[in-house]
Amino acid sequence: MRGVSVIGIGETPMGKYPGSLRQMVKEAGNKAIADAGIDKSFIQAIYFGNFNGSFWSGQSHMGPLVAETLGLDNLPTIRMEGACATASLAFRQGYMAIASGMYDVVLIGGAEKMTHQTTPLITEGLASASDVELESSIGATFPSLFALAANRYFYEYGNCREEMAVVAVQSHANAYLNPDAQMKKLITPEVVKTGFPVADPLTVYDCSLISDGSAFVVLAATEVADKISKSRIIDIIGSGHGGAPIQISTKNPTAFIATQTAAREAYAMAGIRPSDVDLAEVHDCFSITQIINTEDLGFFEKGSGARAVAEGKTALDGVIPINPSGGLKAKGHPIGATGLSQIFEIVTQLRGNAGARQVKNARIGLNHNLGGSAATCVINIFKGRD
Amino acid sequence: MRGVSVIGIGETPMGKYPGSLRQMVKEAGNKAIADAGIDKSFIQAIYFGNFNGSFWSGQSHMGPLVAETLGLDNLPTIRMEGACATASLAFRQGYMAIASGMYDVVLIGGAEKMTHQTTPLITEGLASASDVELESSIGATFPSLFALAANRYFYEYGNCREEMAVVAVQSHANAYLNPDAQMKKLITPEVVKTGFPVADPLTVYDCSLISDGSAFVVLAATEVADKISKSRIIDIIGSGHGGAPIQISTKNPTAFIATQTAAREAYAMAGIRPSDVDLAEVHDCFSITQIINTEDLGFFEKGSGARAVAEGKTALDGVIPINPSGGLKAKGHPIGATGLSQIFEIVTQLRGNAGARQVKNARIGLNHNLGGSAATCVINIFKGRD
Repeated sequence: MRGVSVIGIGETPMGKYPGSLRQMVKEAGNKAIADAGIDKSFIQAIYFGNFNGSFWSGQSHMGPLVAETLGLDNLPTIRMEGACATASLAFRQGYMAIASGMYDVVLIGGAEKMTHQTTPLITEGLASASDVELESSIGATFPSLFALAANRYFYEYGNCREEMAVVAVQSHANAYLNPDAQMKKLITPEVVKTGFPVADPLTVYDCSLISDGSAFVVLAATEVADKISKSRIIDIIGSGHGGAPIQISTKNPTAFIATQTAAREAYAMAGIRPSDVDLAEVHDCFSITQIINTEDLGFFEKGSGARAVAEGKTALDGVIPINPSGGLKAKGHPIGATGLSQIFEIVTQLRGNAGARQVKNARIGLNHNLGGSAATCVINIFKGRD
Repeated sequence: MRGVSVIGIGETPMGKYPGSLRQMVKEAGNKAIADAGIDKSFIQAIYFGNFNGSFWSGQSHMGPLVAETLGLDNLPTIRMEGACATASLAFRQGYMAIASGMYDVVLIGGAEKMTHQTTPLITEGLASASDVELESSIGATFPSLFALAANRYFYEYGNCREEMAVVAVQSHANAYLNPDAQMKKLITPEVVKTGFPVADPLTVYDCSLISDGSAFVVLAATEVADKISKSRIIDIIGSGHGGAPIQISTKNPTAFIATQTAAREAYAMAGIRPSDVDLAEVHDCFSITQIINTEDLGFFEKGSGARAVAEGKTALDGVIPINPSGGLKAKGHPIGATGLSQIFEIVTQLRGNAGARQVKNARIGLNHNLGGSAATCVINIFKGRD
């Protein structure tokens, strides 16, 4: 496989977007192309992630709509979906398309418009990523499914409600330093624990946000990247993709096999160990999800992920800073864009452009994106150049 | 790029399926794996096409659901969508994943469940593939958009209502010989012309069917295919993907630039000319669509596609047999499975297994799959071995 590199990134601020999905795409897409500093004519295909615009906005077939919006008419396009891992899946397919030799330069994008919808329809649309026949149709929503995971985790490793509260506190602190973040409010563990109860033990502060947002990256074959772009190029050194049954009842909810599989593949491809990673954006749809994932990523021993957070190991100046962007919890979670928003942060950090939230000596970064109740996982590993 | 081959195919009969989407997937997927004659453990990933199950059945995130259904738990999966070209897009991405070296053996599938829905919701779901803001929200449905194309075609090349009627007659005749086809009824041009008017000049006989259905193929790197499969292997020799604006008003509706682009790419990769193709499955969501596509594929001069049909050139014993399966018109059009159903037919023909509808000396076959009002096109070219 030939090398592939990121040459451009762009995103909208996360939160309630004042315009349409088209306008979000236009803003984020054009930012990424401008960042790459290339002429649009270099772009050969568009890989686009959108989770459920067909349900929330009645719009499917978003590929050609995105192309038209960006003045890239007539380019081949494709939309991808894999629940909350949608954007990273689009990224991985675009990566493989270049690695295969089919294309040299590809635009990857993702977007989701959610804040215009009512809460019941948002909940129903999100629940479509679970097993509808066996889970959501009997009333199980994602907060309840991950509350099951949290309770089981407490049963196996001891109640860590105290430590788990620090996940949100840290994410809010990081988001406070991120101009694109939706949430700009510092909180305390007490606020988290006494927040509005959603599905015990999860309060509203343990849950990620409902967001509008769009993010894009420009990928190029490494052998081409240097010739066409003057941006600070970041190389992709590993990629992994794992799966698990869609319903939660048939799997261990305190260890995500999809994360473990994707991590094994990505680390092997990159030729690194978990301890070589300098920072990571880790899927935190719920606080418990982040904790379990950081264990399955090999950053911490099983059962010790919550304590690690409370000890500051995942803070900006910790051993392994997690979600310097603020994560899904505080930067935002526009489903179809989330994975690319994670990659935006990793690339920004590896370029040394993260300002007040810059992780020191960031050289290797990882994005981890999960779909459904851990039924889909994509991990990509990036490396800055010396 | 390394070579990729088809080693297994399977599909359900098209039409009203007596079971659930899960059961359709189980039937078609297991048929394809059995046809390949391989142990399931060889399969490394699943690429799945579904157009709008999130709207029609409330189920997104179908990848892990399909994996679970086929006893392939924990495999990496992804769902793809590009309107009616959905299944061929999934095929092309799976093809590239193998070509890139990421995987050796991949299962590609597609399915759509439609017949359980009401006609208004089917129409609304289909219309989500157009530009919702600028087309469907003001009442334009796909029959009306393609009726515009037909009327413009008549204006430019003369009224060919008579010849156009033969498209459906031929498709019905071919479907009559296909055990998997939904429509088993021989018709005359008179029946077509006097059929229930849908959007002038299109009658109901000019329109493709509403169908349930699922189709799967097993792909393997050519260097691996011979070692693991005893099936009659068919090689992929070309693949192309083109795009165009999503809305019809900004493009020429009598020449599909997406088809032209995809064809140029696929022919160049295969190193062949249109006249080298022995048979083709061509996207015929409407009779006029087939006519325009066969011109843009280079089989006939612009403006002569309808006459070619009337002269028998596209019949089973014609110069270039089109839609020997019966096509979308008469075999069926389960959106997310359609492109793979086309590939099922091409592979069946190239293996010489098409029975009463066998095209003589079939050596090179092509599937052409279109999305929206010709905004997405995928073409794949296949070759049997001597």
